[in-house]
Amino acid sequence: MVPDSSEPVRDNPPEQALNRLITPVAGITVATAESCSGGAVAARIVSISGSSDYFLGGIVAYANDAKRRLLGVSEEILASRGAVSAECARAMVEGARQAFGADVVVSTTGIAGPGGATARKPVGVVYLALATPAGIEAHEHRFAGDRAAIIAAATEAALHLLLRGVQETLNRDTSLA
Amino acid sequence: MVPDSSEPVRDNPPEQALNRLITPVAGITVATAESCSGGAVAARIVSISGSSDYFLGGIVAYANDAKRRLLGVSEEILASRGAVSAECARAMVEGARQAFGADVVVSTTGIAGPGGATARKPVGVVYLALATPAGIEAHEHRFAGDRAAIIAAATEAALHLLLRGVQETLNRDTSLA
Repeated sequence: MVPDSSEPVRDNPPEQALNRLITPVAGITVATAESCSGGAVAARIVSISGSSDYFLGGIVAYANDAKRRLLGVSEEILASRGAVSAECARAMVEGARQAFGADVVVSTTGIAGPGGATARKPVGVVYLALATPAGIEAHEHRFAGDRAAIIAAATEAALHLLLRGVQETLNRDTSLA
Repeated sequence: MVPDSSEPVRDNPPEQALNRLITPVAGITVATAESCSGGAVAARIVSISGSSDYFLGGIVAYANDAKRRLLGVSEEILASRGAVSAECARAMVEGARQAFGADVVVSTTGIAGPGGATARKPVGVVYLALATPAGIEAHEHRFAGDRAAIIAAATEAALHLLLRGVQETLNRDTSLA
């Protein structure tokens, strides 16, 4: 697949770590809300046998109207901050959390290029957000390379963010128990 | 990405053909509804620059509850036919067509293995459905190989089905004009 052709072979990809981490513990569920990564984060999770135990699904909201309709991103955010913004990434995880009823959700929105850049948002700018029961956080990234490299980097970073969210949620549950 | 690691390099992948076909013609829109392919069909479409002109998005409905909630697959279909059935694949494209308001939609549901097989539904059985303005069709496939090979084959077949649906829709529009 194009998004991962530039990715190095890894001994321990985050989706395998996720699978090892969640499988023994019942009850934690995961979902995704993707724009620029286009479903590649979900596909990486599903590539691992056993992911059906915790992966509920994902929404690929590529068009702005899909972000509104399926993820409940407000017109105000899209108009004032834009679809490529930390605020939109936050709204996307919140929308997917509600749509799927999942515990931990990751989102991606960015400019994979070669088109779509603006003065303030160059090609390679990607916002990721993470929702866990503890709250929502967002991060800005600037990835280099062509479209495939940027999508691959965004996908990899989203999987690592999701993995951290699951780890923290499991640790939190353990400390509360 | 794992789902495509076993795929041969192609000179003319279906997502590129799709891009060449749609771009010059305004107005046709595409969406996906994926279960066993896990977002890989959407990711292949998004890998092509220019796909934002026609690709609205996709729903990865991996859990049965997501098929119900996000795609409107009925409890009756899930209980009587199962999530891996032609009827479910049909309901998935219909649900995604409504959710996105798209002209042409493709869906995937199947058993990628190694678990999940039943006597009547072995590992490798995959149902694909296509929705166009002309109607909905479903197809049963039996793919060989391991999980990655089955997902890759389902993804490739879904992209070819989507491409045909777009071709037929464009031809139909031309003949009606």
